[in-house]
This record gives sequence, structure tokens and C-alpha cells, in this order.
Amino acid sequence: MATEQDVILGVDIGGTKCAVCIGNTRGEVLHRLSEPTDGANRSPEAVMNSLADKGKTLIATVGAASVIGVGVSCGGPLDTTTGIIYAPPNLPEWKAVPVRSLLEDALQLPVRVENDANATALAEWKFGAGIGTQNMVFMTMGTGIGGGIIADGRLIHGRNDLAGELGHQTILIDGPLCGCGKRGCLEALASGPSIERSARESDLPGREKRVLHLAGGDLNKITAAHIVQAAIEGDDFANAILQRAGRYMGIGIANIIQMLNPERVILGTIAVHAGDLILEPIRKAVSEFAWKRSAEVCSIVPAALGDRAQDLAAIALWLQ
Amino acid sequence: MATEQDVILGVDIGGTKCAVCIGNTRGEVLHRLSEPTDGANRSPEAVMNSLADKGKTLIATVGAASVIGVGVSCGGPLDTTTGIIYAPPNLPEWKAVPVRSLLEDALQLPVRVENDANATALAEWKFGAGIGTQNMVFMTMGTGIGGGIIADGRLIHGRNDLAGELGHQTILIDGPLCGCGKRGCLEALASGPSIERSARESDLPGREKRVLHLAGGDLNKITAAHIVQAAIEGDDFANAILQRAGRYMGIGIANIIQMLNPERVILGTIAVHAGDLILEPIRKAVSEFAWKRSAEVCSIVPAALGDRAQDLAAIALWLQ
Repeated sequence: MATEQDVILGVDIGGTKCAVCIGNTRGEVLHRLSEPTDGANRSPEAVMNSLADKGKTLIATVGAASVIGVGVSCGGPLDTTTGIIYAPPNLPEWKAVPVRSLLEDALQLPVRVENDANATALAEWKFGAGIGTQNMVFMTMGTGIGGGIIADGRLIHGRNDLAGELGHQTILIDGPLCGCGKRGCLEALASGPSIERSARESDLPGREKRVLHLAGGDLNKITAAHIVQAAIEGDDFANAILQRAGRYMGIGIANIIQMLNPERVILGTIAVHAGDLILEPIRKAVSEFAWKRSAEVCSIVPAALGDRAQDLAAIALWLQ
Repeated sequence: MATEQDVILGVDIGGTKCAVCIGNTRGEVLHRLSEPTDGANRSPEAVMNSLADKGKTLIATVGAASVIGVGVSCGGPLDTTTGIIYAPPNLPEWKAVPVRSLLEDALQLPVRVENDANATALAEWKFGAGIGTQNMVFMTMGTGIGGGIIADGRLIHGRNDLAGELGHQTILIDGPLCGCGKRGCLEALASGPSIERSARESDLPGREKRVLHLAGGDLNKITAAHIVQAAIEGDDFANAILQRAGRYMGIGIANIIQMLNPERVILGTIAVHAGDLILEPIRKAVSEFAWKRSAEVCSIVPAALGDRAQDLAAIALWLQ
């Protein structure tokens, strides 16, 4: 068990940028270094060597004796037991990279590796919107819909670290094609790109009023951010698009509630930006598609950590 | 932790009959007494008193010192912390019956209470088709579709003991009305009664060949057992009905696999009787609706405990 004096080295490996930080058990980030991933020009080993060097610098700053371990948050698929990363979508060149052993050798500290959605679930649980719960679910709601499950006080991994793929449950049989290759996944109905597609393809009136204007008049440049902004301004078309996505999201969350009976569902990105404009249709669908007895114990709230989420995700791996 | 010499008093409370048994840690039932529940003529207290008396008899037979505890398996909703049962569908008169405290007072032994689907999941895990797994899901497939989840080596309860309601995820938005009041639940598409309704309402040819014959010529007397029997005999109509139900069941199981990444899904009742006639369409749908990486580590098998399941469910509560 970590004490108040202990600190953790957090490593966040992303497709665009990477960061190394020192955080304490209260979720305060004390030191931080970052760099572009530049996966096109650097091998995974070169990236890992650079991150290990930054880690050594930070460890020297705080003193090695206070660092209890290293947490690595990264896109999956990956193996939390071996600490090997298997070519996540945002790092396609990282084929079987032994992240854990590379860092353990370089830093001489124990290393835990976790996929970013699970790690963020832990961070929201320990430091954010999930504090005090024993059963909670975190869901990203951005480019994709991922998730992490805390059940009866523990992060759930499943057989081969694929538990929590909450965006790839089937909501609509024979529905729109998902990026994963299946049809009718929640992600194909309520993620950022699916909201954009929904706005582009919609035959509802009023798209030209605000949404198309915000996109510079180009239908293909409509983003989820434009739709959220227009909805905040009171635009009916944008609101209708969000309500449709929110209803599907609510059906997916209702399924999760029926299966796992969480006391809190924490939603990232779009839910943070749009607030009740998307949360209300979500809650309405949950009340329709989940049992009252289960729904009434479960609050559905936006994520609380904002920009701190990625650093704290890596830190939180040592606070389970 | 239970030892080889320890025994457990198991109490199974059902809508039709109740049983009290002594079982050991290897899943052998050593002694057993049963009685009709007779809930129409007996109060919950009268039933509990009678079961406590039977329990005392069995405890005297084996010697009180060897009994480590009492396990009670019963329909939910119930509260596993307080041990209170809240009017399960099969015992509607049992409104807030404090089963645990009644039995603890009468037997002077610690009592654990669990809903029957969760308890059966534990029994299949310890003694049946789930032996050796760390992530498995048990699903009933009879009058209703219930379930129990073992995730990373532990039974999952959720916030208020409602985790595992796997039959009440939404498979078909605006689908057929479910017994629970929602629409399009898995239970409304793949349970025994829904298979019967599907056979009654189907416009597929050939119903008269075997299915209607087995039902004595009365459309309203078709049962799931008739359909399974006809399918075993090679009847095309019955097989088409099972394939339809199996496809929906497979979609529901695919959703579970995406969320929980189990290594085994264990199916009761209809899957036990129909075997591959329903398991094959289920597996086919799973391969279509779940990711290859998740599906390929998960076997879908019939339950193994048969008539022993209910006794062992109560026993297994002390082997977690």
C-alpha cells in the first residue's frame, strides 16, 4: 500500500505525444516532461529509450527511494501480465513491444502497464468523479468509445485484457459499419465521428443555420465540436443530432447497468463539453431501458479530471 | 478457507419446493431433505422455521463442529449484506423476509444468502463446467434468462446485488415486450417462453409436421421442450426456431464478451437439452458480433451440474 510520502513515475504513451511525470498518492503531478511520439521517424525502442531517460531525470529530481513504481498508460491491445504492447490503433508500428521489461531494465523499478481507458477509469475512481464508489464504469466518448470497469472495488481485466470494450456492444443489428469492422456497435452510433456522420447524412431541417456555418460551409468539415457548440448556442438541428446520439449512448449504458449494476457511470470528452445537452437524453434512455431498481442507484456524470486525466491515469496504476 | 473435512449446510428456497442439504468441499451432497414450499398456505416464517428444523436434523447427523456455515440460494431481488429477500417473482409474498437473521438465530451458524443465478454460477465454477477458469459467465436459459458473473476470480455483485441481469440487456430496440416490462430484452427473444411464442406466431412452413403434433394439435400448448425434441428428431421448422433464438442469444453473449472478456460462457436448461442445435447458432452469432481476439479465447458450453445444480449452488457460497 502506498503511503503519503510515496511518489509514482507515470508514463503516458500516445499516438501523437508521450509524457513522463512524477505524481503523489493525492493525485498531484509534481514534475512533468513531454515529447512528440514521432512514431513515423522513431522506432518503438528509440521512443522507449527517450522516455526512460526522461524518467531517470525525474527520478533523480525526487530521489529514487521515494518512487514506489512506474505506471504506463497506453492504447491496447496489450498484455498487463507481460507488459507487452500489441500494435494499438494509434501506434500501429508497435508490434509486440516489451514496454515493461524495457523500462524495468532501464529504471530498476517495478512497472505496471495498463490500457489507457482502464487506467483513466482508475484515475477517475481515485481522484475524480468516481471517488468513494465501489462499482463504477468510465467511458470515453470521443473518437472512439472505450471503457474501464471497476466492479466490487476492483478493475476488471478479463481473460486477455479485453474487458471494458463497452463501445463495441451491438446496439442496432445491421446498423452502420463501425471502425472495428462490426455493424451497429455503440461506437458507430454515439462517438464523435458517428455524430459527425449523423449530421452530414441527416435529412432534418436547419443544418445550414449554425452547424454548416461553423464548418465553413463545407459539409465534410463538420466536427463533433461544431455540433456541440451549435447545441450550446441553442441550435435545434445540433440538439436533435445530440439527442439521437444520446439515446443510443443511453441504451448502451442501460445494458451496462443491467449487467454490472454500477453506482456511477462517468463519461468523457463529448459529455464533458456538451454537459446536460447530451447527458439528459442519455439519462432519459437509461430510465427507459434499464430497470428502475438498478437505474435509481446509478448516477451518470461527466468526467472530472480534464487535462490531468492522462498523467493521473498512469499514476493511478499504483493506487489499486 | 474451507478444509477437506468441512461441510456446509445448503438451503435452496424455490417457488415450488425447498431443500436442505449437507455438502462437502468436493461438491458431494451427503444428506438431503426437501419439502414443498406451499407458499399459498404457509407464511414465510413457517417455511423458514420448517427449513431451520430440517437444518438442525442434518447438522445433528454430521456433528455441529464440522459445519462451517449455511448457504442460502433463492430468487432475487435480495440483499446479500443484510440477507433480506425482497419478494422474488417466484415468491411474491416474501416481502422483506430476513432470511439470514432467522437462520442465524435458529442454527447459531453464519449464513450467506445469494440469488440463485449467482449461486449457480459459483457452483458451475467450483464443481461444474467452469472449473479452472478465472473469468466465466453462467446464464440460465429457461423460463427466464438470468446470469452470474465471475470476473478476475470473483463473483460480481454490483451496487445493490443486481449485477448479472444478462437477460435484460436490449437486443432489439422496439422489440417484443419482455416479462420485465421493457421491450426487446434478450429474455424476450431467446428464453423458453419466447421460443414458444416464436413457434406459435411464426409463418415459417412445417409447424404441423412435428411441433404441433407433439403439442397435441393445440397451438397454445407448444412448449420449448416440444421444439427441442422436434429439432433433435431433425424437424426443419423446430430447427429454424432454435436458430433464430440462438442468433439472438449469440448477440447477447457477444455483448457480454465485449464487456467482460470471459474465457467461458456456461448455458443452462435449453442449451443442456438442445446441445449443438442451439449452441452452434449461438457460436456463429458470437463469431459475427464479438471481436475475434475476444471470441477465440471464450468457449461456450452447456452447464454440467444438471439436477445437482440447486443443492451445490447453496453449498458453493462457502467456497468463494
